[in-house]
Amino acid sequence: MLKGIPKIISPDLIKILMEMGHGDEIVLADGNFPAASCAANLVRCDGHNVPDILDAILKFFPLDTYTEQPVSLMKVVGENSEPPIWREFSHVIKKYDSHFNSFEMIDRFDFYERAKKAYAIVATGESALYANIILKKGVVIDK
Amino acid sequence: MLKGIPKIISPDLIKILMEMGHGDEIVLADGNFPAASCAANLVRCDGHNVPDILDAILKFFPLDTYTEQPVSLMKVVGENSEPPIWREFSHVIKKYDSHFNSFEMIDRFDFYERAKKAYAIVATGESALYANIILKKGVVIDK
Amino acid sequence: MLKGIPKIISPDLIKILMEMGHGDEIVLADGNFPAASCAANLVRCDGHNVPDILDAILKFFPLDTYTEQPVSLMKVVGENSEPPIWREFSHVIKKYDSHFNSFEMIDRFDFYERAKKAYAIVATGESALYANIILKKGVVIDK
Amino acid sequence: MLKGIPKIISPDLIKILMEMGHGDEIVLADGNFPAASCAANLVRCDGHNVPDILDAILKFFPLDTYTEQPVSLMKVVGENSEPPIWREFSHVIKKYDSHFNSFEMIDRFDFYERAKKAYAIVATGESALYANIILKKGVVIDK
Amino acid sequence: MLKGIPKIISPDLIKILMEMGHGDEIVLADGNFPAASCAANLVRCDGHNVPDILDAILKFFPLDTYTEQPVSLMKVVGENSEPPIWREFSHVIKKYDSHFNSFEMIDRFDFYERAKKAYAIVATGESALYANIILKKGVVIDK
Amino acid sequence: MLKGIPKIISPDLIKILMEMGHGDEIVLADGNFPAASCAANLVRCDGHNVPDILDAILKFFPLDTYTEQPVSLMKVVGENSEPPIWREFSHVIKKYDSHFNSFEMIDRFDFYERAKKAYAIVATGESALYANIILKKGVVIDK
Amino acid sequence: MLKGIPKIISPDLIKILMEMGHGDEIVLADGNFPAASCAANLVRCDGHNVPDILDAILKFFPLDTYTEQPVSLMKVVGENSEPPIWREFSHVIKKYDSHFNSFEMIDRFDFYERAKKAYAIVATGESALYANIILKKGVVIDK
Amino acid sequence: MLKGIPKIISPDLIKILMEMGHGDEIVLADGNFPAASCAANLVRCDGHNVPDILDAILKFFPLDTYTEQPVSLMKVVGENSEPPIWREFSHVIKKYDSHFNSFEMIDRFDFYERAKKAYAIVATGESALYANIILKKGVVIDK
Amino acid sequence: MLKGIPKIISPDLIKILMEMGHGDEIVLADGNFPAASCAANLVRCDGHNVPDILDAILKFFPLDTYTEQPVSLMKVVGENSEPPIWREFSHVIKKYDSHFNSFEMIDRFDFYERAKKAYAIVATGESALYANIILKKGVVIDK
Amino acid sequence: MLKGIPKIISPDLIKILMEMGHGDEIVLADGNFPAASCAANLVRCDGHNVPDILDAILKFFPLDTYTEQPVSLMKVVGENSEPPIWREFSHVIKKYDSHFNSFEMIDRFDFYERAKKAYAIVATGESALYANIILKKGVVIDK
Repeated sequence: MLKGIPKIISPDLIKILMEMGHGDEIVLADGNFPAASCAANLVRCDGHNVPDILDAILKFFPLDTYTEQPVSLMKVVGENSEPPIWREFSHVIKKYDSHFNSFEMIDRFDFYERAKKAYAIVATGESALYANIILKKGVVIDK
Repeated sequence: MLKGIPKIISPDLIKILMEMGHGDEIVLADGNFPAASCAANLVRCDGHNVPDILDAILKFFPLDTYTEQPVSLMKVVGENSEPPIWREFSHVIKKYDSHFNSFEMIDRFDFYERAKKAYAIVATGESALYANIILKKGVVIDK
Repeated sequence: MLKGIPKIISPDLIKILMEMGHGDEIVLADGNFPAASCAANLVRCDGHNVPDILDAILKFFPLDTYTEQPVSLMKVVGENSEPPIWREFSHVIKKYDSHFNSFEMIDRFDFYERAKKAYAIVATGESALYANIILKKGVVIDK
Repeated sequence: MLKGIPKIISPDLIKILMEMGHGDEIVLADGNFPAASCAANLVRCDGHNVPDILDAILKFFPLDTYTEQPVSLMKVVGENSEPPIWREFSHVIKKYDSHFNSFEMIDRFDFYERAKKAYAIVATGESALYANIILKKGVVIDK
Repeated sequence: MLKGIPKIISPDLIKILMEMGHGDEIVLADGNFPAASCAANLVRCDGHNVPDILDAILKFFPLDTYTEQPVSLMKVVGENSEPPIWREFSHVIKKYDSHFNSFEMIDRFDFYERAKKAYAIVATGESALYANIILKKGVVIDK
Repeated sequence: MLKGIPKIISPDLIKILMEMGHGDEIVLADGNFPAASCAANLVRCDGHNVPDILDAILKFFPLDTYTEQPVSLMKVVGENSEPPIWREFSHVIKKYDSHFNSFEMIDRFDFYERAKKAYAIVATGESALYANIILKKGVVIDK
Repeated sequence: MLKGIPKIISPDLIKILMEMGHGDEIVLADGNFPAASCAANLVRCDGHNVPDILDAILKFFPLDTYTEQPVSLMKVVGENSEPPIWREFSHVIKKYDSHFNSFEMIDRFDFYERAKKAYAIVATGESALYANIILKKGVVIDK
Repeated sequence: MLKGIPKIISPDLIKILMEMGHGDEIVLADGNFPAASCAANLVRCDGHNVPDILDAILKFFPLDTYTEQPVSLMKVVGENSEPPIWREFSHVIKKYDSHFNSFEMIDRFDFYERAKKAYAIVATGESALYANIILKKGVVIDK
Repeated sequence: MLKGIPKIISPDLIKILMEMGHGDEIVLADGNFPAASCAANLVRCDGHNVPDILDAILKFFPLDTYTEQPVSLMKVVGENSEPPIWREFSHVIKKYDSHFNSFEMIDRFDFYERAKKAYAIVATGESALYANIILKKGVVIDK
Repeated sequence: MLKGIPKIISPDLIKILMEMGHGDEIVLADGNFPAASCAANLVRCDGHNVPDILDAILKFFPLDTYTEQPVSLMKVVGENSEPPIWREFSHVIKKYDSHFNSFEMIDRFDFYERAKKAYAIVATGESALYANIILKKGVVIDK
């Protein structure tokens, strides 16, 4: 543990986040996502929920401003109602990025392909369905 | 994830627990314990509390009945008051082992030596102090 | 060994089962299947029969409900009679999944290709012929 | 699988047995033995009983004739009755070695030390207690 | 060394043979074959002849009965005379398989491609030319 | 790079710092220190000065409050004058720890032994002499 | 550290530079470049600027004279103004190669593809944007 | 070092040469060749000249007699004069192979592709230009 | 295979022999020697006899002339007759070293300790008993 | 190869030299030294002489000025005459260090122990006897 770094972030996760550059993507996968079979780099966060990890990551991780929709979700097949966890995601993201607008929606099979090309997948214990989320990293700017 | 296995238990942790035999020890270490420098086998559970992990482990893990005190704690130096988390530990253990009686108390430096000889150390994010605990595995009996 | 986990399940096998996600597949291969040459991840269970392992796995492993036939067999070429072990398979599966209906039948060469894409292959010592079986993992749901 | 080699013997086990030389020892450990923490080379045979493995091994493995007692057991502390599985061991060994006479009895802690120096430990799922056995390899003679 | 296993078979070779399943192929390569550059799994048997290794392997290794010609040779380019070592091969194979009939003949470049897809190549010191041979594994049947 | 983490800290360095626990030590070594031959874990920061790295680390890294002198230096042999860089060290440490008082001074050979037992050594390009410094990690406290 | 080799050059970097041959390319990447996800060989120089590293490298590294433009930059999309750091690059290169004339300009996506084929990528902490640069190695000539 | 093996041949080089079979190729690369980025197996012989290594290798290494030109060079682009080192190569080869006639000439880019498919590349310190040479191994014949 | 190197010598064996220096020892172990459990570096020569390997090795390997007895054997316990293979050893050694005089005789347990300190052990299939031999390498002299 | 770095220095050697710090030692070993069995880090320079490598190394490598004799040789047993190569060593060292005075002389067995503790051993092909030399690294000073 270190001062100022949330306890939910493991040493491996912070290392992975630092290694990523502009345009690299990371997937926060729910507990039923086939993370081990898709991941180029796998970080396990068993037992944690996606919103908690999302909140901890966004403290350090800028979203890409070169694209309209730097955050992506998996489209629900054959349903109109929105999974309630998406509103939580939206709420967390707006804490860090007041300009956040809308999610990119990806078909299930395109989502798997995107996940395989992502720099890393974080395997959580999230039990909500359709709770997978992809973040595209932006540019870190000196202040 | 699997049916009947708590989500807080990672694939590596269940594997480690199964590999252990009668008399092998596992340390559940709080977030300030020097786990990485002491561990023969290290399992990371960042962001979780020790009582939650203890509860999940004891569902599968028999305590040693060949010894009086199969659970050990680190003695608090120069204090009379008992850390409140110890009562939680006691409560969790009694759920699984009605005969549980008392903890073995180990001096700080003996505790470090025991930890180095343990089969594995689980590094948690527990923020309570003196929240480290050693479990000695018992015999699994056919029913 | 752990309480409540069948002794036939090795530490590596439980770890593999936990790492799998929704839609990932595992092959239980008979003793003559070319398991080592096909497997992305190989788990050896020499000397055991497939029905025993199937029974132990299904205690923890949900079958996919998003597909009609989450369990697949290799089609017998040029024969009408069904291998007797298939009835055993059916019997075991129904113990855990009362809705189970019928197997997907796969041609020999498609079966090999499916096996190569599976997350893992379990190499058993099953001596019955045509005793290979593929399981597609379903969603683990909180209760 | 191969013709003439019992299915219970895994590829790793036969390799280990062949690599051993005169005087090297192998431990067949019951399911509660701390095999993973003691083994220089670990071979897993989860779910199998020790007598079945013993029988398969002795088909290929000569016992040492340079010592009076090439087979060793762990002494039961504070009991007079002999664990029933020892008679099974004796029966199996006599099938292969008509001169077999008596076991060497080793104190618990000496047994652990011997196990750590053995060339390999076979981790079985044997549920009988005191079912651990050490075999010392003899000389293979041309016929 | 073990009782009943020919001394020419190394621990690695027996392990490779056991790992193979129905339809997997193994190449016994003469001393001039580009074994190291073609092999998925390489087993060195320097200084030995192919017929001796063939004889030792067939003691354990069933040839495939699902195909007409489970044994393949490399076609000699532009010659009519048959290399004398082929008769030796034939003689050895018939010791173990009275139904053996004829070899499959493969063009040089197809042979190299087959070798690259084989489960293993055994690099011998055979000095006879055109002494390479591919064996396809059959089914091991309980007796 | 991440928001709020100084650019001088590499992904490996932040990972190492997070893995350390209470009482673990890290050495910031000048460019002439035999870092590679002493380090259990080596982190290279070629071309950087020790005070810059010290400043970046202390933003996250609590010094041990259980000991009087959690920061140690190598005693200069046969000299009275204090290396000027020590004042810089003192200045940086006081920015983060207003209670900082004095350094522990260690003889050259004891310093090497301490460095070998440290969790990690950071190899810098610092050209000042006697610029090696050991930090003992304290407890991270929830706020 | 060694005499005559700038301190900013790490042991790994000098090794990589020596291993490269005529026509091999190396990328000096700014702090936001996706270096870890693109690099065949990754050298970290966190916290350093590209011009400093460029200057140190060109002391040893000949630029290719078989091509008109052995140094390449990433084209700025939709802008006319030249990033000021390019003039610095030009200045440093001319110190070592008086014939240096102009940069090759590469479109963003072609640049990523070139980076993936480069022998190595050096990940710096450069905060200027569009500060990535590719160097093609020339022939080292005996003097 | 061994009796009868030239000192210029390293343990790794002799091993590589022995592993090669009929038709495998080895590249002796000059000091500016991109050896590390092209080699499947890389053997370093820094500081040595190609003719010295060629001479040492040909003592053991038969050239292929199944092809007209078992030795290949890289064609010089746009020049008529032959690099003087080629005469040296010719002289050395004729010491071992009196039938040697002429070199196969390969275009630069075909040469790179051939080098990538070769079994090994030997990286020398040869400073002559166009001093790269490919040897195709022949059959070793019993005498 | 290479010209002038006996086929019985594997690529690994020649590499090991070349790596050895003055005073390093190599053990040629018979088929019952516990080679795998004693060897720092293990070279397998299954199926071969010790005299054949000895003959091949001594073609390249100088015996130490700084010691009276550079070749050692294991003393036979409680017997007067000399194992017949020792005469073969003597015969082979004298082919290469006309000054060879007598063997150093080592007690069984000292022999095991020497074997553990040797640079390598060659595991043969020699079936003669007491056929283990240790060779101490001498100095290779330029001619 | 790089500008200004002698071709005899391999990428691995320069890396090793840079990693060394004040007081670390490197052994330049002649062709008969047991380098592979003694070295913590081994760098092969087969076919080269020690004086050539010494000359190339000292261009970059400062000798320790904190000790009287930073260069050590192996004492010749029972001889008065000095090996002629020592004068060469002396000559080369004085090129770089005008204050060089005399060698430290070490008994054969102490020399072996020192070599085992050195940071690295360079295995050359030097055929002169008693041509082994140990260099102790000094401090690199900014200019």
